[in-house]
Amino acid sequence: MIEIMIDLQGGAKAPLYEKIYNYIKNEITLGKMATGEKLPSTRLLARHLSISRSTVEMAYEQLLAEGYIKAEPCRGFFVCDVTELYRLGIKQPAEGGHEIQKSEKVKEEIEGQGREEGLCRKTEIDFSPYAIDTEHFPFNIWRKINKNVLLDDREELLLSGDGQGDYGLRHAIASYLHQARGVNCEPSDIIIGAGNEYLEILLTQILGKKQRVLMENPTYPQAYHTFYNMGYEVEMLPVGEQGIKMEAVLEKNPDIVYMMPSHQFPLGTVMPLKQRLELLKWAAEGENRYLIEDDHDSEYRYRGKPIPSLQSVDRFGKVIYLGTFSKSIAPSLRISYMVLPPQLLEQYHKCCGFYSTTVPKIQQEVLKAFIEEGHFERHLNKMRGIYRSKHDFLLGELKKRNWVNNIRGEHAGLHVLVEVKTKLSEQEICALAAERGVRVYGISEYYISGKKVAEDREKGLDRRQTPVLLLGYGKLTEAEIKDGLEELDGILGEDYALSVAGLGR
Amino acid sequence: MIEIMIDLQGGAKAPLYEKIYNYIKNEITLGKMATGEKLPSTRLLARHLSISRSTVEMAYEQLLAEGYIKAEPCRGFFVCDVTELYRLGIKQPAEGGHEIQKSEKVKEEIEGQGREEGLCRKTEIDFSPYAIDTEHFPFNIWRKINKNVLLDDREELLLSGDGQGDYGLRHAIASYLHQARGVNCEPSDIIIGAGNEYLEILLTQILGKKQRVLMENPTYPQAYHTFYNMGYEVEMLPVGEQGIKMEAVLEKNPDIVYMMPSHQFPLGTVMPLKQRLELLKWAAEGENRYLIEDDHDSEYRYRGKPIPSLQSVDRFGKVIYLGTFSKSIAPSLRISYMVLPPQLLEQYHKCCGFYSTTVPKIQQEVLKAFIEEGHFERHLNKMRGIYRSKHDFLLGELKKRNWVNNIRGEHAGLHVLVEVKTKLSEQEICALAAERGVRVYGISEYYISGKKVAEDREKGLDRRQTPVLLLGYGKLTEAEIKDGLEELDGILGEDYALSVAGLGR
Repeated sequence: MIEIMIDLQGGAKAPLYEKIYNYIKNEITLGKMATGEKLPSTRLLARHLSISRSTVEMAYEQLLAEGYIKAEPCRGFFVCDVTELYRLGIKQPAEGGHEIQKSEKVKEEIEGQGREEGLCRKTEIDFSPYAIDTEHFPFNIWRKINKNVLLDDREELLLSGDGQGDYGLRHAIASYLHQARGVNCEPSDIIIGAGNEYLEILLTQILGKKQRVLMENPTYPQAYHTFYNMGYEVEMLPVGEQGIKMEAVLEKNPDIVYMMPSHQFPLGTVMPLKQRLELLKWAAEGENRYLIEDDHDSEYRYRGKPIPSLQSVDRFGKVIYLGTFSKSIAPSLRISYMVLPPQLLEQYHKCCGFYSTTVPKIQQEVLKAFIEEGHFERHLNKMRGIYRSKHDFLLGELKKRNWVNNIRGEHAGLHVLVEVKTKLSEQEICALAAERGVRVYGISEYYISGKKVAEDREKGLDRRQTPVLLLGYGKLTEAEIKDGLEELDGILGEDYALSVAGLGR
Repeated sequence: MIEIMIDLQGGAKAPLYEKIYNYIKNEITLGKMATGEKLPSTRLLARHLSISRSTVEMAYEQLLAEGYIKAEPCRGFFVCDVTELYRLGIKQPAEGGHEIQKSEKVKEEIEGQGREEGLCRKTEIDFSPYAIDTEHFPFNIWRKINKNVLLDDREELLLSGDGQGDYGLRHAIASYLHQARGVNCEPSDIIIGAGNEYLEILLTQILGKKQRVLMENPTYPQAYHTFYNMGYEVEMLPVGEQGIKMEAVLEKNPDIVYMMPSHQFPLGTVMPLKQRLELLKWAAEGENRYLIEDDHDSEYRYRGKPIPSLQSVDRFGKVIYLGTFSKSIAPSLRISYMVLPPQLLEQYHKCCGFYSTTVPKIQQEVLKAFIEEGHFERHLNKMRGIYRSKHDFLLGELKKRNWVNNIRGEHAGLHVLVEVKTKLSEQEICALAAERGVRVYGISEYYISGKKVAEDREKGLDRRQTPVLLLGYGKLTEAEIKDGLEELDGILGEDYALSVAGLGR
């Protein structure tokens, strides 16, 4: 048993539960409490500190939610491996600034028993890979910060401010990017904008007209359409598990390569360091060659160490780094950021310096406070725990299915790819699932020009028999995941059984 | 004396002052209290209604601020001509929703005496034509709405929502545009975006590549640079007091004409109906011809009837209407809107439907409530009164100056043009003023390619002797306007005196 000696008198105004939370968190972070060590029970610690048990429970709830400790039914609380947790090293929240997430999930763990989640089936179960969890958003904190930002009648809240985005927010983002993604940048290298597509539009103006862009296929269709709309010549490079091949890049000879090295969308692959260095070398060899690194959902990796960004190993000023708060906070925020290398920054000031920022001042101030007061760090850690649970649950359920041939792109992001044993086409599966109130997505939707589908058709039925579905779990509860898969059983299980029995359509 | 019979018991929960305010406002709007009629004094009305005098004063303050009544020193309160006031006819605010603006200005009027404004000279007096008044922004209301929007943990606040902008906000904007600007549109015709430049970028994608745009010279430089960046061929058409000439349009034969018919920036001219109809006819004669109407600051017109928008007389579906809340609320809001004619709306859905909105959900909801609860109407009326006072004060002061040759573009917007009798160039005036802590702007800054300056130089000194300054008054107090002009006296008055005495440089 760990001995806990907390100075509950010192530190002035913070609530008791927060002092306990901070103490234990620090002990864990500093390694004084080692992975796997057992914490005192809430009852014991409450008696030891002469405080109420509910205060200790609040502190444990917060530690649980943020992934510092875990609860094992009937056994107690144990210190987690926290090497993967975000530690942004920026100032800690003001007193009372935490939000206690009294979610049912955490409550169950506290009570040491796994009650089955209530069946709260909605009209539609949507396995969208873009959807995020909305149940655990820290609304209380967001409200509080909003209130604080608007508290004084500050004139500058009405003025549009810096075209690149306010310095304070850029500073907070630079600091986050450096610590979490190894990105080397100053606040002055960052442009904040209303979404990735807006920043890509800005980028095309900075890079100049008629550039030739090479993109992985499949990819984010929105990025493709944006470059296409901006008059760029976009070439698609078919990629599989191996990622981009250098020979193909040399052959296509583009100006720009757009990619997602840390977590390719939708394949979920990670680009090996060797390939990254090759691409950087290639880019360095041409004055106007650049690599766009879209690091869209790198926050969520559930197994192994986080992968540093491509930008972090770039010594030539050739990487344009793009990121967003759409997945880490909420898509409705409409805040993305772009880190420009020096040559492009100069060009930005020359040809795009006249643009006003596209992000409202108040929203910028709220986000800045959210990051600087430590809430973003907590939120990321908490959400990673939540998404990991959903991910693990989905994988466990999928492994029980005989219609699942292969699972790919797991251990990161908010969706997995499932290769299905079936005679149905992707379109047929999606249509049949929709009839049962379940939305699933075929990977062919993410291929540009539908070439993949055409190729597959040419290759005949063998190829058609292994459709690949994207199953996003960000927004779904375990019960919804279970229900959704059971509906798919009704379509695919039956079809599989028929096909095994040689009775295929 | 008007007889006031207010039912102070009915209408349930609204505060007393609000009942009085609403009663009098309605009486005036319905014409039951005629322009010029005298209101009872606050003392009399308070006694009549058996309530405190301060309650009546609060109601009168609000009516004064919104322009329904005026105070004449030592004489009392009189009903204003309200035919020019905004009446948006949307639902009235919930009880207690008003903000009482206890500005010094209104207080003075209440007290029936014009104390001189305190000399609160800042380090710099900036006559920027883009600056707005920040002193009278209804922060309390904005805070309250923000709080209400965030009150429930509504999941949809986290989702990015409709790419065109949320239906509710588009509905509120459509209703406002119809009532205030005569614009014919449905919510489905509106695209909301993060600023005019973003919407212009979107527009170039809808209109297609390589269009030829004709713009007035001088103009909004930002719009020019945006079209230029988007690869459009931009032709500039020199315009003076007469506005665009049809012969010139026919000769240049563009695809698109970008203009500001209700209040040209920076000239301040209004396009006559005949010219509008000619342009519409021209546009109707070519399938791909369109007129972009940028109605940027049409909210502020101080003399005469508001001028309906060009879009309101378009029967051919040829006008693209652009507007913004930057001047009517605040530039930091980053919300603009665009009304598309049917053919372009179809094209938008085809080629730009994949874009997410660029405006955060929360900001959209706050603005929607601000409009729907009647605060926008009040704010516009109040600000028009405030800007008119500043405008009148500036004009009065300018008329005392012997260095002022001519004043143009007055009675609307947030700046006037001043033709100066001097031997100094615009650049010299701006530089000398800057040395004295005053920022003024030469009109040549708003000419694209500096052609105007070059032409003027060719024409010799005569032309150079009448520089034109833009004097924006939106953000300045009367004291600041006075101080700023006195500094200019130090530069221009002296120079003028010298030049009159034949002792010019």
